[in-house]
Amino acid sequence: MTAFDYDLFVIGGGSGGVRSARLAASMGKKVAIAEEFRFGGTCVIRGCVPKKLYVYASQFPEHFEDAAGFGWTVGESTFDWKALVAAKEKEITRLEGLYRKGLDNAAATILATRAVLVGPNTVRLTATGEEVTAERILIAVGGHPTPHPDLPGHALCITSNEAFDLPEVPKSIVITGGGYIAVEFANIFHGLGVETTLIYRGKQILSRFDQDMRQGLQSAMIAKGIRVLCEDLIIDVAEAADGRRTVTTKAGETLHVDQVMLALGRAPNTGSLGLETVGVKTDERGAIIVDDYSRTNVPGIFALGDVTDRVQLTPVAIHEAMCFIETEFRGNPVSPDHDLIATAVFSQPEIGTVGLSEEEAAKRFDDLEIYRAEFRPMKATLSGRQEKTIMKLVVNAADRKVIGAHILGHEAGEMAQLLGISLKAGVTKDDFDRTMAVHPTASEELVTMYQPSYRVRNGQRI
Amino acid sequence: MTAFDYDLFVIGGGSGGVRSARLAASMGKKVAIAEEFRFGGTCVIRGCVPKKLYVYASQFPEHFEDAAGFGWTVGESTFDWKALVAAKEKEITRLEGLYRKGLDNAAATILATRAVLVGPNTVRLTATGEEVTAERILIAVGGHPTPHPDLPGHALCITSNEAFDLPEVPKSIVITGGGYIAVEFANIFHGLGVETTLIYRGKQILSRFDQDMRQGLQSAMIAKGIRVLCEDLIIDVAEAADGRRTVTTKAGETLHVDQVMLALGRAPNTGSLGLETVGVKTDERGAIIVDDYSRTNVPGIFALGDVTDRVQLTPVAIHEAMCFIETEFRGNPVSPDHDLIATAVFSQPEIGTVGLSEEEAAKRFDDLEIYRAEFRPMKATLSGRQEKTIMKLVVNAADRKVIGAHILGHEAGEMAQLLGISLKAGVTKDDFDRTMAVHPTASEELVTMYQPSYRVRNGQRI
Repeated sequence: MTAFDYDLFVIGGGSGGVRSARLAASMGKKVAIAEEFRFGGTCVIRGCVPKKLYVYASQFPEHFEDAAGFGWTVGESTFDWKALVAAKEKEITRLEGLYRKGLDNAAATILATRAVLVGPNTVRLTATGEEVTAERILIAVGGHPTPHPDLPGHALCITSNEAFDLPEVPKSIVITGGGYIAVEFANIFHGLGVETTLIYRGKQILSRFDQDMRQGLQSAMIAKGIRVLCEDLIIDVAEAADGRRTVTTKAGETLHVDQVMLALGRAPNTGSLGLETVGVKTDERGAIIVDDYSRTNVPGIFALGDVTDRVQLTPVAIHEAMCFIETEFRGNPVSPDHDLIATAVFSQPEIGTVGLSEEEAAKRFDDLEIYRAEFRPMKATLSGRQEKTIMKLVVNAADRKVIGAHILGHEAGEMAQLLGISLKAGVTKDDFDRTMAVHPTASEELVTMYQPSYRVRNGQRI
Repeated sequence: MTAFDYDLFVIGGGSGGVRSARLAASMGKKVAIAEEFRFGGTCVIRGCVPKKLYVYASQFPEHFEDAAGFGWTVGESTFDWKALVAAKEKEITRLEGLYRKGLDNAAATILATRAVLVGPNTVRLTATGEEVTAERILIAVGGHPTPHPDLPGHALCITSNEAFDLPEVPKSIVITGGGYIAVEFANIFHGLGVETTLIYRGKQILSRFDQDMRQGLQSAMIAKGIRVLCEDLIIDVAEAADGRRTVTTKAGETLHVDQVMLALGRAPNTGSLGLETVGVKTDERGAIIVDDYSRTNVPGIFALGDVTDRVQLTPVAIHEAMCFIETEFRGNPVSPDHDLIATAVFSQPEIGTVGLSEEEAAKRFDDLEIYRAEFRPMKATLSGRQEKTIMKLVVNAADRKVIGAHILGHEAGEMAQLLGISLKAGVTKDDFDRTMAVHPTASEELVTMYQPSYRVRNGQRI
């Protein structure tokens, strides 16, 4: 018989926390979960879900335009930002309800409060001041967009947290950053008719992605009218007399825009959590340091999801949660597998990717075969839209294994998910070649590239 | 040194014929290819390509409707059938040109004529009466929609051949048949605003597909307003006084419609080809009988593609062509692999499928695990569209191999293509489980179904 109030106390109601709490509670464990804001975490409330809904919203103008090539004449369209925000809000509220319902059904105790560590097995609920004890405490408090406090005028800027709920759609926006969040929002705002400028200090957006993806997407974004300023950065943001923002860049540009959005990375939510009180170690970025089983250095205290800064993705947090439950409550130690994670950038066109970029593969393997196809998607032949789909396979010549797959184009995210299964299973290029095409699809290109486009030997393209 | 005019004479300029001719010619072989109509065959001229273009055209009304849920107000739209036909025509003419160009570049001789067999190594070109000889003759003449001559009034009906080029879009249509062609056209015409009735003698559309796909699609079609009459058939078509068609069914229905389309299967184009002259054997359906290497019973005469009625799909014909070239001209005997062919039905929602249906798998294996998810796609949460996505995996419990994958929903065809790689490589359900989800996608459901929905033991669902 335990002397604690709970078997498990979860701090944070995001994807990882909720999954942990629900699974443990459904096993009959006594579980509490504390969330100070809304259940669902970054993913549901201000990340993946609203993002994808806004992506859909931003794609309609392309549908309206594309229709003409297929015989349709479409009347004028107008867009109501507030209606989108309200529809999004309704949907995330519904999802939040499902999260709560799952916890309720599993008989987890839901606590609407911030919780901070006050001892190795004790947390204080800040809403009431009450202290409760638990055999295991799980920290799954996630992260937040870096506010970039060194930037003069940073308080005049928004981040992805505010972007979904702006009182009105800006006429113009500057987004700074070159990661997937910056890129996705640039595409969303552009699609919704906002004059959009992306400023990024690097040479090209999406560092660490395959070069063809970076080049292909950046070109596509510029071609459709997004202004992309690379190798530059914002050095000052000021409020103009008309209430708008004046942005000054290092290269000497001055831009007057309605909104400035900072997308300069995310930081773990480890402030004011009591970590120092109990001695939980964090790294230089503030992320909680955990071992292969999501254990912190303090026995009985665990952490997973974005707060540990391993791989900041919803499915990874959920996977870490399932491993945590398996390890701690089912006597079956399982450490999270962070290898070969397929991901998507919900830009337009989308990127879907799994495994190594050509550049990274070239560092690790002596002899690569690169299969690459670039083509106009079928729909574009009638719509007249100038767009290219790029598909690329990186193959280790030594054993024919497909070690990277990269797609720029419609539904690339869906494709990456399914290619992820193949790569995870270790399939070879011969398996691709043996597969019959499905016609007409875009992905049939992936199984009909019989000859390498080129090879990379000892890091040199030949 | 050969005594023949050609090393290879190809009859028929469709996918299989063109690929064979181009490959052989590019190896330096002396090749002629005869086509009496247009290059590209069923696929390019009156099959896959125009079909998919019309599918795109038919989807725009849904886009216009869906937009409202995302904050868009869209003006009235109108559709111009003739503009679509013209756009389609321009595109297939472009593709036809690419086929010709490929043949030209490989230095194949293009003959604009029908060609018939007059001897084991001799064909007559009907345009000129000239006879030419070839060491090998390849018959790749394809098939045509069954005209159903026993049906009174069948001459008043159209088939898929005519459907793309109707002088005007009908206000109403009856389509008879339950296969993928009938189903695809029913969805296209309905999407374009045509009052559509599908009549099929079977219990449910798409026999041989997985039951969940059949049921799911038929329900979706009915829900969106297509009238589906199963277990009935047309017994008479007559011209009404107003020039329209009066259709009588066996069950006693009388329908007055603008067009009646027969989609009752396809038959090989083996009439008047001279097969009997040289003794090439055909089966009871008229298909040319070939062995594992696409050889007919007459030495030097080969056949592939739809005329052999193995699997009537463009990629299969192309694959058979590549095997034929490998076997006959590269000294490397390869027989076509017809196992685990992924296919798509470009209905709306789409079906993508590879491997065994649950029903077929239950006949072959003692113990199955069925993983099944049915959910509303994310876009539909805001559009308000009532639609379901169904995803299903059929797993052989004995070795955990995934032996069937079936999807009803957006982009199911693309998904089937990529699942095809996994199934062809023989991956297990554990490989699916090991794969990290890509969020938010639809296909992530396929890697997050950890527990079987049910099992099938000795043919019984338990």
